[in-house]
Amino acid sequence: MLEELKKAVLEANLALSRAGLAPGTWGNVSGIDRGRGLFAIKPSGVPYAALTVDSMVLVDLAGKAVEGRFKPSSDTSTHLEIYCEFSEVGGVTHTHSTVATAFAQAEQPIPCLGTTHADHFDGQVPVTRRLTPAEVAKDYERETGKVIVEAFLEYGIDHARMPAVLVAGHGPFTWGRDAMEAVANAIALEEVARMARDTILLRRAFAQPVAPLPSHLLRKHFDRKHGPGAYYGQGQSWDGR
Amino acid sequence: MLEELKKAVLEANLALSRAGLAPGTWGNVSGIDRGRGLFAIKPSGVPYAALTVDSMVLVDLAGKAVEGRFKPSSDTSTHLEIYCEFSEVGGVTHTHSTVATAFAQAEQPIPCLGTTHADHFDGQVPVTRRLTPAEVAKDYERETGKVIVEAFLEYGIDHARMPAVLVAGHGPFTWGRDAMEAVANAIALEEVARMARDTILLRRAFAQPVAPLPSHLLRKHFDRKHGPGAYYGQGQSWDGR
Amino acid sequence: MLEELKKAVLEANLALSRAGLAPGTWGNVSGIDRGRGLFAIKPSGVPYAALTVDSMVLVDLAGKAVEGRFKPSSDTSTHLEIYCEFSEVGGVTHTHSTVATAFAQAEQPIPCLGTTHADHFDGQVPVTRRLTPAEVAKDYERETGKVIVEAFLEYGIDHARMPAVLVAGHGPFTWGRDAMEAVANAIALEEVARMARDTILLRRAFAQPVAPLPSHLLRKHFDRKHGPGAYYGQGQSWDGR
Amino acid sequence: MLEELKKAVLEANLALSRAGLAPGTWGNVSGIDRGRGLFAIKPSGVPYAALTVDSMVLVDLAGKAVEGRFKPSSDTSTHLEIYCEFSEVGGVTHTHSTVATAFAQAEQPIPCLGTTHADHFDGQVPVTRRLTPAEVAKDYERETGKVIVEAFLEYGIDHARMPAVLVAGHGPFTWGRDAMEAVANAIALEEVARMARDTILLRRAFAQPVAPLPSHLLRKHFDRKHGPGAYYGQGQSWDGR
Repeated sequence: MLEELKKAVLEANLALSRAGLAPGTWGNVSGIDRGRGLFAIKPSGVPYAALTVDSMVLVDLAGKAVEGRFKPSSDTSTHLEIYCEFSEVGGVTHTHSTVATAFAQAEQPIPCLGTTHADHFDGQVPVTRRLTPAEVAKDYERETGKVIVEAFLEYGIDHARMPAVLVAGHGPFTWGRDAMEAVANAIALEEVARMARDTILLRRAFAQPVAPLPSHLLRKHFDRKHGPGAYYGQGQSWDGR
Repeated sequence: MLEELKKAVLEANLALSRAGLAPGTWGNVSGIDRGRGLFAIKPSGVPYAALTVDSMVLVDLAGKAVEGRFKPSSDTSTHLEIYCEFSEVGGVTHTHSTVATAFAQAEQPIPCLGTTHADHFDGQVPVTRRLTPAEVAKDYERETGKVIVEAFLEYGIDHARMPAVLVAGHGPFTWGRDAMEAVANAIALEEVARMARDTILLRRAFAQPVAPLPSHLLRKHFDRKHGPGAYYGQGQSWDGR
Repeated sequence: MLEELKKAVLEANLALSRAGLAPGTWGNVSGIDRGRGLFAIKPSGVPYAALTVDSMVLVDLAGKAVEGRFKPSSDTSTHLEIYCEFSEVGGVTHTHSTVATAFAQAEQPIPCLGTTHADHFDGQVPVTRRLTPAEVAKDYERETGKVIVEAFLEYGIDHARMPAVLVAGHGPFTWGRDAMEAVANAIALEEVARMARDTILLRRAFAQPVAPLPSHLLRKHFDRKHGPGAYYGQGQSWDGR
Repeated sequence: MLEELKKAVLEANLALSRAGLAPGTWGNVSGIDRGRGLFAIKPSGVPYAALTVDSMVLVDLAGKAVEGRFKPSSDTSTHLEIYCEFSEVGGVTHTHSTVATAFAQAEQPIPCLGTTHADHFDGQVPVTRRLTPAEVAKDYERETGKVIVEAFLEYGIDHARMPAVLVAGHGPFTWGRDAMEAVANAIALEEVARMARDTILLRRAFAQPVAPLPSHLLRKHFDRKHGPGAYYGQGQSWDGR
C-alpha cells in the first residue's frame, strides 16, 4: 500500500546518496501520509544501490513496522518523534554530512552569516544538549527525538521556519513539507555549514570577530522565498526544489 | 525571438551547473543583446536539468519580462543594474559558490596573492558595503546592483578589468563579454578564492603576514592575457575560454 | 586456485579506487583464506584500471608468493604481520587517504568526537610510534607491522573493536572480517578524519578545548552496531556493508 | 612528424585535465625527443576537450615553433629552459593546482612530513625567489625558467630526485622521464600539498611545531621506489605510473 509515498521516499533516498551526503549505508529519509498515519522509511543498513520501492518500510505512529520485509532504519524512533511533535513536517532526513556534523561535534550552532543561509533557515541552526546516560540507556533513538523537540521549545523556535537541527555529538536532522524537500534542506545545510566554517576561519585569520547577518537581511531573504508574499520561484509546483 | 542569445544563455547556465557552482536551483546566468536592448535570463527556481531554450526569459532594460512562460530569476534587477551601468558587460553570472561566498560573508575582499588571480582580475576582488534596512525595504535586488556600482565608483575600479564583485553577506557576481565568459570568470573566482583561503591559513599558521602579489607581476599577468599586446591564447576566437 | 578469494580481493581493490582513496597506484587491499593459510593481495605499482582476477598475487604465511605473474604489493609484509598477530582479521587495506594521513603525519590519534566515529571505531584511532633507523634498515615493511601490533598491546586495544591504526609519518591501515569490510572501514576512517579535523579547527576558532564523546554515547553507538545485542542493519548478510 | 610523441603529449594533457588539476584552459604538458631536439606542447588557451594530436605544437631548442597551426603555450619558454638545463627531464607539466599553488603563493616550500611525500620527492619541494621587475619586463617566461634553475643550483638539489618546484606567487612545475610521468608527479604533488596543509593546521591547533619526517624514513621511501635497489612496482614497464 501507499505505493506513491514509498516511491517518493525511495527517490528522496537516492537523491541523498547522489548528493554525496550518505557514504556507505549512512543516512536515511522518510516521508509521511498524515491522513493514514503511516510513514515510509529506508531499511536499516541496506546499500543505496540495492534499494527498491519494495524495500521501503511502512511504520505507524505507534512506531510499529506494518509493511516491508526489512527492519526499518535504526533511527526510526527519532523520525517518529519529529512527526508526532512537529505538525507541519511531511518528510525527514538524517545524514552525517561532513561539515554540519563537525558543527554538531563541536557543539556549536551554525550561525547565520549570509543570505544563502537565510534563504533556507530563519536564523542560526540550533544544536541540542547532549543526552544523559539515563536517556541513552532507556530508549536512545526516541530520546534523541525528544531533545530535538526540547531545544525548539526552549528557544521558542518555529519548526516550519527552521527545518534543521544539529544533535550534539551526532549530526544533523532536516525536514520539509515532503521527503524531497527534506533532502533539499539537507543539501543546503551542508553547503551553508561549509561556507560558515570558511567564514569563521577567515575572520579568525584576520583577528576579527564573527558577526551574524543583520536581521533585516535575514528576514528579507527568508521571506522572499518562504513568507506570505514570497516571490522566489514559480509558485508551489517548483517552489523550494 | 533572439533564439541564438537564448541558446547561448541556456548553455552558459548548464556550464555553471556542470562546474558544481550551483547546487539545487541556486545561481543564474544572463546575456544581453545590446542592439535590441534585451537580455535573456534563467527563470526563478527551476532546476537546471529542466531548463530548455524556451524556458529562458527575455527582459527589457526597463526590467519588464517581454517573452517566456516563467518568471525571471529573482535577481533580475541586479543583472539589469549591471547592464545599465557597466557598458562593456555582455553577460552576468550570480552564484553562491562556497569559498567566494565565505569571503563575502567575512566582508573581506579577495586579495591578489598570485598569478592565477592576476590572469583574471586586475587587483583584489572588491566587497561592497552592506545594504541598509531602507535599501532592503525599498527595491532590494535593484539596490544590490546599486551598491555594486557604488563600490566600483568609490574605489575607481574599471569594470572591464575587474569582472567580479562580492556583495557583503551575500555572494559573488561576475561578468564578461558574453554569458559564457561570465561563467568562466565565476569558475576562476571560486578557484582563486580557494587558493587565497589556503594561502591565508598557511601564512597565519607560520605566523607571517599576508602579502599581495607585487604590482609588476600583477600587471604582467593581467596584460599578457587581456592588455593591448596580449599574447595568451589564439586571438579572439579562443581567448578567455 | 582460490578464485573466489581473488575475485573478492579484486573487487575490494576496485571499490577502494572508486571511493577516491587511492590516486595513481597508491593503496592496496588483501583478503585471507585462514583454512588454506593463503592471502590474495594487489600487485605492486599496477594501475587499478589494469587489474584482473589473475593479477592478484597469492602469498603464504611465510611471506612467499605462491601464485601470480606479478610481484605482490611492497606493503605485503605489513599485511602478513597483521594476519599473523590479529586472529580475527579477514581482510586488510592500506591507503594514503588525505586527512587520515594528515593525522598520521601530525602524530596525533584521531579522537572520537562523535557518533559517526563511534559507529565504526571503539575509541580514538591509535597512532604508532615512529620506526627507529635500525628497524627501517632491517626489514622495513615487517617492522611496520610490528609497531602496529606493539601499539595495540601497549594500550590494550582489542583489534576486533578497533579496525584501524595510523602509522606515524606514514598513513592508515584498516581491517575487517573480509577485504570489502576493510575497505568500508577505510572509507569510514577518512570520513571520520575529515569531521575530526573540522571539529578541531572550529573548536580552536572559538577558543574552546576539544572534548571527546562521552563514553556512554561511544559505547551505545559501537554496540548497537557491533555488540552482542546489535540492532543496526539486517543481520549478518547486510551488516557493516 | 613525431606523431608518437605528439600522441603521448596529447594523452598526458588529457590525463591532467581528467585529474581535475586544470580547470578551463589552465595548465599544460610537454614532452621532448632528445635525439631530434624537439618538444611537443599544448597550444595556448585551447580547451582540453578540443585538443587533438594535430593541435600539439612542435618547438625546437631555440624556442621556435616548427610545426602546428596554433601558437604554443604561453609558458613554452619556461619548459624550454627546464629542458636545456635539466638533462634527465623528458616531460614537463605546469598547473595551478589549488593547494600546491597556495604554498607557492605563501612562499613556503612544501615540507616533507610523511612517506607519501618521500615516495615521490627527495626532501622539501623548493620555492623559488620572486622575479624582479627587470626580469618580468625582459623575457618573463624564460626568466621564470631561470629562477627555477637558480633555486636548484643554490640549494644543490638534484633535479632527478626532486621532480617539482614552486614558483613564488605563481604555482608548480613538475617533470619526469616522459610527459605522463610529469603528470603523475603533478597529481602526487597536489595530494602531498593537501596532506601537508592539513598536517600543519592540525599541529598548530594542538600548539605543536611542525616536524619534518626523519631522514632515515625519507631516504628509505624514496629509494625503495627510485633508488638503485628499488623494489616498488614491476620494474620499468609499470614503474612510477
